[in-house]
Amino acid sequence: MKLDLQGADHPAPGDATKGDPVPAVPSAQPAADAVDVTALLERGRTLATPVLRAAVDRLAPPMDTVAAYHFGWIDAQGNPADGDGGKAVRPALAVLSAQVPGAAPEVGVPGAVAVELVHNFSLLHDDLMDGDEQRRHRDTVWKVHGPAQAILVGDALFALANEVLLELGTVEAGRATRRLTAASRALIDGQAQDISYEHRERVTVEECLEMEGNKTGALLACASSIGAVLGGVDDRTADQLEKYGYHLGLAFQAVDDLLGIWGDPEATGKQTWSDLRQRKKSLPVVAALAAGGPASERLGELLAADAKSNDFDSFSEEEFAARAALIEEAGGRDWTAEEARRQYAVAIEALDSVQMPDHVRAQFVALADFVVVRKR
Amino acid sequence: MKLDLQGADHPAPGDATKGDPVPAVPSAQPAADAVDVTALLERGRTLATPVLRAAVDRLAPPMDTVAAYHFGWIDAQGNPADGDGGKAVRPALAVLSAQVPGAAPEVGVPGAVAVELVHNFSLLHDDLMDGDEQRRHRDTVWKVHGPAQAILVGDALFALANEVLLELGTVEAGRATRRLTAASRALIDGQAQDISYEHRERVTVEECLEMEGNKTGALLACASSIGAVLGGVDDRTADQLEKYGYHLGLAFQAVDDLLGIWGDPEATGKQTWSDLRQRKKSLPVVAALAAGGPASERLGELLAADAKSNDFDSFSEEEFAARAALIEEAGGRDWTAEEARRQYAVAIEALDSVQMPDHVRAQFVALADFVVVRKR
Repeated sequence: MKLDLQGADHPAPGDATKGDPVPAVPSAQPAADAVDVTALLERGRTLATPVLRAAVDRLAPPMDTVAAYHFGWIDAQGNPADGDGGKAVRPALAVLSAQVPGAAPEVGVPGAVAVELVHNFSLLHDDLMDGDEQRRHRDTVWKVHGPAQAILVGDALFALANEVLLELGTVEAGRATRRLTAASRALIDGQAQDISYEHRERVTVEECLEMEGNKTGALLACASSIGAVLGGVDDRTADQLEKYGYHLGLAFQAVDDLLGIWGDPEATGKQTWSDLRQRKKSLPVVAALAAGGPASERLGELLAADAKSNDFDSFSEEEFAARAALIEEAGGRDWTAEEARRQYAVAIEALDSVQMPDHVRAQFVALADFVVVRKR
Repeated sequence: MKLDLQGADHPAPGDATKGDPVPAVPSAQPAADAVDVTALLERGRTLATPVLRAAVDRLAPPMDTVAAYHFGWIDAQGNPADGDGGKAVRPALAVLSAQVPGAAPEVGVPGAVAVELVHNFSLLHDDLMDGDEQRRHRDTVWKVHGPAQAILVGDALFALANEVLLELGTVEAGRATRRLTAASRALIDGQAQDISYEHRERVTVEECLEMEGNKTGALLACASSIGAVLGGVDDRTADQLEKYGYHLGLAFQAVDDLLGIWGDPEATGKQTWSDLRQRKKSLPVVAALAAGGPASERLGELLAADAKSNDFDSFSEEEFAARAALIEEAGGRDWTAEEARRQYAVAIEALDSVQMPDHVRAQFVALADFVVVRKR
């Protein structure tokens, strides 16, 4: 494979220097260090969750129950549960972005809820398409309630996302819905790419980044701007906030790809070498294969053989460890860590051209720091 | 089962007088007889199809190809095809409705396209959920391209529907999208009801009508008003046009349910006793079961036994004919034909309170006549 990086300012894989497993990013702005990120995430969650639950309650039975199970509010038997709601970065960004034009955080809440609904619509459908049986340490919806309910409730959440915004009845809500629709289309494109790449032996670094931009960047871009759009910012400002979110999404995904191979199972809740077990063509793998050199070539031969192997499922820890070592030796790990830093830098830079109160800017930076240095 | 018809002005099933297999409806307005319905349908098709194809062309590969197969524009091998695009009643209504406030028919085109996209999103997902292998005499998408593509392309068409409207960037487009979203939610509710009714032994006439209102009425309501909304009518006018479309949808569905049992296979392209073979709890069946009397009771016993039977699939023509005869004897056929006439009358009456040019009103009536007297 020829490495194809036209138009991108990425160094060629293999050029990166040795780095930490998870990139240590010193905050771009000292003021961000003073921000209480836990409180910021909690604020987003506290403001958005009741509105999200009220929206889901509008669904006709049994869809309301299936959705409540998916969100972790009830267990498979219908008893109340206190599920892991995730990190809630998107709601935090959505309500924060309302403060860019000086609006109250609450103005961003319908945007936060709509983004969460779209995110969860895509999880319901993707888990079914991918045959994934577990999510957040629980059986997925199609596994518990059957494929038809996974399709149907996904559709309902998607429709509900537009409803929650459009019932505001404002011009801003129309603009926000249009941006959310564009993000939804990107999500769907990303899933289409993901499926088609599974059947291919090789994927370029650029293709992998494009897919991750669609699957992760686009919705984080929407989350980072939707509150501001509801608060009345112009399109140029919204575009810059989207740029921050898009590149933050790519940084997030690069870290995710590192954790998918080298993450601590205790912290991630996943198996060791999780992405290797799933033969995922994630960024470290793709970059290692593109780097050239003896380790890269040996890795390519191994993975090609693995693809045809009948006893891949019984591989030992040592066999996965050997593949991880080759990825590292070929430079895939360092390149991906460096890529996370590059995307983080582009995200932070996008904030420079947006006028906003200093404390709001510091909070955007602090959330970006949190996303890139996380361990799970 | 107690017959539950609270709040509805339906006579109890069994009260209807003998009627034609398909209800003969003399046009409510003589002026409608002069309307060339074929030309009206052709106009909708001609205006909407190029815009629909351009929208579908925006989808990333392979979704564009999968969608083109679904619409009948190409065959399973990717060669151009001239598929049966259906009767195209919805596009005809959407462009006609733009003329209510005096706008050009073209103003309704984005609405016509958005409605068609939502309709086809629901077909893609419903066929997969229901396990239906054939639609319009061709293999369904999940059968040809697999379940994942059926889910994904359905999602993409749903998103595209909103995109086509919202990119107009007008206040009217926002209002139209909100109404389309409400119709989409109803469609999804209807499919949820359909799935849950399959597992039940008995369904009331009211439940059946509610499901058919969601599955057929809501989107026809949206089609009948969306061009008018884009043309700037007020909410009250839009609501009245929706009422016309909703009840026309119920009339359409009642006729469909009659054709599903007694339709001529040559004309419908379906097997004889098609809905009986699928054990569909359609209106004639439900009404017959609710009617009471010896034929109704005998039918109830037979269908209960059928539900448990292991050799239902090898039933002879005579066995289905016997069930159809019992449905007819119990009054299910006549009641459904009468129901089509009642719904038609409510639809036409809704037009009375809407100001519009006389020739536009005559065209709405002519389309309703066409829908109710069709043989396929």
